[in-house]
Amino acid sequence: MGSEQMTRKIGVIGMGHVGSTVAHDIIAKGLTDEMVLIDTNEAKVNADALDFEDAMANATFHTKLIVNDYSALKDADVVISAIGNIKLLENNTTNDRFVELPFTSQQAAKVALKIKDSGFDGVLIDITNPCDVITAIYQTMTGLPKNQVIGTGTLLDSARMKRAVGKVFKIDPRSVAGYNLGEHGNSQFTAWSTVNVLGKPIVKVAQERPVDFTQLDEIARAGGFTVLHGKNYTSYGIATAAVRLADIVMRDARAELPVSNFRNEYHNYLSYPAVIGKTGVVETLQLDLTDEEIEKLRLSAQYIKTKFDDTMENLQDN
Amino acid sequence: MGSEQMTRKIGVIGMGHVGSTVAHDIIAKGLTDEMVLIDTNEAKVNADALDFEDAMANATFHTKLIVNDYSALKDADVVISAIGNIKLLENNTTNDRFVELPFTSQQAAKVALKIKDSGFDGVLIDITNPCDVITAIYQTMTGLPKNQVIGTGTLLDSARMKRAVGKVFKIDPRSVAGYNLGEHGNSQFTAWSTVNVLGKPIVKVAQERPVDFTQLDEIARAGGFTVLHGKNYTSYGIATAAVRLADIVMRDARAELPVSNFRNEYHNYLSYPAVIGKTGVVETLQLDLTDEEIEKLRLSAQYIKTKFDDTMENLQDN
Amino acid sequence: MGSEQMTRKIGVIGMGHVGSTVAHDIIAKGLTDEMVLIDTNEAKVNADALDFEDAMANATFHTKLIVNDYSALKDADVVISAIGNIKLLENNTTNDRFVELPFTSQQAAKVALKIKDSGFDGVLIDITNPCDVITAIYQTMTGLPKNQVIGTGTLLDSARMKRAVGKVFKIDPRSVAGYNLGEHGNSQFTAWSTVNVLGKPIVKVAQERPVDFTQLDEIARAGGFTVLHGKNYTSYGIATAAVRLADIVMRDARAELPVSNFRNEYHNYLSYPAVIGKTGVVETLQLDLTDEEIEKLRLSAQYIKTKFDDTMENLQDN
Amino acid sequence: MGSEQMTRKIGVIGMGHVGSTVAHDIIAKGLTDEMVLIDTNEAKVNADALDFEDAMANATFHTKLIVNDYSALKDADVVISAIGNIKLLENNTTNDRFVELPFTSQQAAKVALKIKDSGFDGVLIDITNPCDVITAIYQTMTGLPKNQVIGTGTLLDSARMKRAVGKVFKIDPRSVAGYNLGEHGNSQFTAWSTVNVLGKPIVKVAQERPVDFTQLDEIARAGGFTVLHGKNYTSYGIATAAVRLADIVMRDARAELPVSNFRNEYHNYLSYPAVIGKTGVVETLQLDLTDEEIEKLRLSAQYIKTKFDDTMENLQDN
Repeated sequence: MGSEQMTRKIGVIGMGHVGSTVAHDIIAKGLTDEMVLIDTNEAKVNADALDFEDAMANATFHTKLIVNDYSALKDADVVISAIGNIKLLENNTTNDRFVELPFTSQQAAKVALKIKDSGFDGVLIDITNPCDVITAIYQTMTGLPKNQVIGTGTLLDSARMKRAVGKVFKIDPRSVAGYNLGEHGNSQFTAWSTVNVLGKPIVKVAQERPVDFTQLDEIARAGGFTVLHGKNYTSYGIATAAVRLADIVMRDARAELPVSNFRNEYHNYLSYPAVIGKTGVVETLQLDLTDEEIEKLRLSAQYIKTKFDDTMENLQDN
Repeated sequence: MGSEQMTRKIGVIGMGHVGSTVAHDIIAKGLTDEMVLIDTNEAKVNADALDFEDAMANATFHTKLIVNDYSALKDADVVISAIGNIKLLENNTTNDRFVELPFTSQQAAKVALKIKDSGFDGVLIDITNPCDVITAIYQTMTGLPKNQVIGTGTLLDSARMKRAVGKVFKIDPRSVAGYNLGEHGNSQFTAWSTVNVLGKPIVKVAQERPVDFTQLDEIARAGGFTVLHGKNYTSYGIATAAVRLADIVMRDARAELPVSNFRNEYHNYLSYPAVIGKTGVVETLQLDLTDEEIEKLRLSAQYIKTKFDDTMENLQDN
Repeated sequence: MGSEQMTRKIGVIGMGHVGSTVAHDIIAKGLTDEMVLIDTNEAKVNADALDFEDAMANATFHTKLIVNDYSALKDADVVISAIGNIKLLENNTTNDRFVELPFTSQQAAKVALKIKDSGFDGVLIDITNPCDVITAIYQTMTGLPKNQVIGTGTLLDSARMKRAVGKVFKIDPRSVAGYNLGEHGNSQFTAWSTVNVLGKPIVKVAQERPVDFTQLDEIARAGGFTVLHGKNYTSYGIATAAVRLADIVMRDARAELPVSNFRNEYHNYLSYPAVIGKTGVVETLQLDLTDEEIEKLRLSAQYIKTKFDDTMENLQDN
Repeated sequence: MGSEQMTRKIGVIGMGHVGSTVAHDIIAKGLTDEMVLIDTNEAKVNADALDFEDAMANATFHTKLIVNDYSALKDADVVISAIGNIKLLENNTTNDRFVELPFTSQQAAKVALKIKDSGFDGVLIDITNPCDVITAIYQTMTGLPKNQVIGTGTLLDSARMKRAVGKVFKIDPRSVAGYNLGEHGNSQFTAWSTVNVLGKPIVKVAQERPVDFTQLDEIARAGGFTVLHGKNYTSYGIATAAVRLADIVMRDARAELPVSNFRNEYHNYLSYPAVIGKTGVVETLQLDLTDEEIEKLRLSAQYIKTKFDDTMENLQDN
């Protein structure tokens, strides 16, 4: 057996609500041949691994599990970062993902060095929040090419927008096209000029029948709150987004998705649609946004940049 | 559109770790067209439902969700009970599923009446522990035919045995055949006379090379502890078992599985393989057990019976 | 077990290259619980059914098969017509789907009456060519509401357009949006005003870099020829389209798809996007086409209408 | 992007009924990232490839296709040989797979050298008949280690036996365990001593209720005839078996399956259960057969050996 044969391998770092749901989704769908599960909480990651192994006799697909071995990431196709600290969020009354930053940025920096040491050279997908800043930290600290490090970013916010539009127009969210852009955080926004539904731009639909864009924004946003306040975390929406992204990378599908990627014009990571394939971002796009949208995006980018610069300074101080 | 057309509908009652994992597994695999999610914690069930809806834009399959509406169970094919009380287990140092009984038996009795009122006439699958007693309560209180009410029972214990055997023999757990029987609890046991591996009965394999049955039991059991102590609950193993069972019912596959079903010779529910199809248990089996296994089974059955009788008395007192 | 429970059932009529590929695709994906296979060639349909049953021991999903029993269609969710006569196409040097019309129209009329007699009241999906005329015949002869009878129409032509655009822009065809409209035949056309790629309308992309629309049309069309001349029939493209459509109906997904549906303004069936759900067409759309596209569509509609009227006259003469 | 990352790749050689059905099954299930399609009939293989590409816009999974490029097999995980000559079978009134031998042995020898030249070092799965002889030719001519070359063999015959047993006992064929052994041809037989159903050996079941083994053999065999005479070829049963086998290899599942593998005691290929994983046969088994079964197997092995020796002589003469 030669060294050429090597099938699908995914690493998932962080076995909290999100990471373990990501792992479950991948196993249930049979999307990988091997999975590396990593967490600093040995008891939790071993518990999840054994729980998955207890599922194998009744499972559709066989998946080989490897636990807490960074060196096994060397030949992984994709590594997904889902580290976080649920306790920080539970006590968070401000609904601001940046309360996590001091904790997650330090953790991500440590994890990044271990990923680097493993010799990993695939695509690193970051879910950890604040997504854009942490994605930038991962790229900086691993030294991987920028195209190979991406964040789930507004892929989730776009899905929420599609849920809201789908609800109002009574249509499958998958039949709604368009993007939320910018920071995966409070400064993100729906670029309504990019949204299509019922066979035409939603702005044209709005000329024919009343469309309450403020209400759509509200429905999308309220959903996020309902989830967060109802269970203190979100898991299924974000995990499904991350797994779809990972699968597109592994299949080299070259699909167009709004994810956090490095945009030269803003000198930083932020969510903007890109063509995703085997090496991560395989082509960048240039949307025809309105002036208002461009300004919103600029502000969002600026916000991320400031946070990133502060964070890097703090990291270097430690 | 006539009343004849009616596609797959599953109800999941109880949105704790297990119930929500069951729902996720079903949605990820696209096994139903409609799902009814029910929980007394309105905030939690609404959070999970919205989180699933946030996944839809990135999902492979579309699934319609209905929240906290018992009347929607009327035409469901399958209802899965996953109610429980995680707090009871967290403070449980005895590792005995019966600490849950006073709580879950009362909850199950209430839920059963609501299921009955809905007019549900499909197959009720119980995961709630102590599984055999609660399954019996469900059957009694809903008045559904005995074949239509089953528990996941030792389908999970059998999967753990297959994991252990698979590990020792370096083989896919799905290539290990055989059953754990009796109570889904401390009195369950592997009926080694029914286990096949490497093309023959494991007892014959043991004549050719050393097989440490005590060690195999230990590996299976230790796995359960590792999961429970590492995360205070088990979810993936049991959810995968329950979903496989539900799918077999919906497809009327007539597959043979060890589940908790009413056995006339013991006048009660306990796990024993049966042929599962559209109406639940469509045929019962009669294994060729050893005398020792028959005795173990009798004791396990007796234990369940005592617990059931006590519980029914308590329920009637309330 | 009540009469309410009834899971997924699909009928496939016509076990030629297309029909048997449709059946295989559905079984491989596990999309139905029961499938009714019908063909006038008893030996062929029995052969396919047994061949599928020989697959079951190694299959992921169990599917129950029923052969040549029209009465079993009564409670089917979806019936797919794939009848045809391959010999007519093999000797067809004109590449015109209408050479099939005298044969398929008479067959469809007969099949329609048998479907009607079964009491079927689900959604009838027609693949049989010439698609729009045959779909109209099915609707007329079964007496089913117009929304419940649809044809795959330009869902395939649109997929071919997406393949061509995807090839030129090096992008996943699923990341190309837009429609081919009109007759599923020589008068169909791509409504370029509806096509989006790389985050914007393709007509805007064409302002920034050269896009050769004639070449794109050519690539899409040439593909069809290559398939037809290379194997005398097409199967995988059309079957995958039909199965996706059937699944969307069964899940009541309310997805937007270009299919052959009855358009009041043209008094006939032709392909135009519609929202598809449980009862077939659940909502019609109104695109913002260019004047040129509207004229092309009018001509295509007129062509279909003439053919339909002629055919109905011939059918009544017989 | 390093050279370590490399996802699933399957080659399918021969685009007749079986090969194209194998390719369709893999694409429909999304089991590979890249597929290499090879056939000497350029028009046919290009037609199938384009037909698959016309399916991509409506497909669940993206699959990259490569046509008629042997060099692309270098890093494939699995190559499946489905070459054959349907015309030989159509005119075959003897129902003997050896009518194909003079043709397929020469073709296989040519193909084997091209596979060898590609540098392929994965697992070669042979479907081409007569399966055991052709598998042996592939191993000899490619020089690949014996464990890396296997034939689907009696995996299909076993599935037919399970269909027959399932039919008589009204049970899911997947709930029937056991093996057909020997030549994938007229000398194969069901080793009834290995068959389990309803929780015990079928020979024990036969002590309690009448089991007509001759009738079961007849039902299994008659199915094969019905398929062959009804459509001149078999495709779904064999393709599903081959695809399951390929998936087990790629996932390194270490599952136990009856396939054609080299058995030292018979100095040749024949079907006997083995543990299948990443490198093909990863462990051999030793069944406890009856004396009668051992004799049947010896005769079957002898028959294959004679045919193989004759064939090699003829190949060398050419």
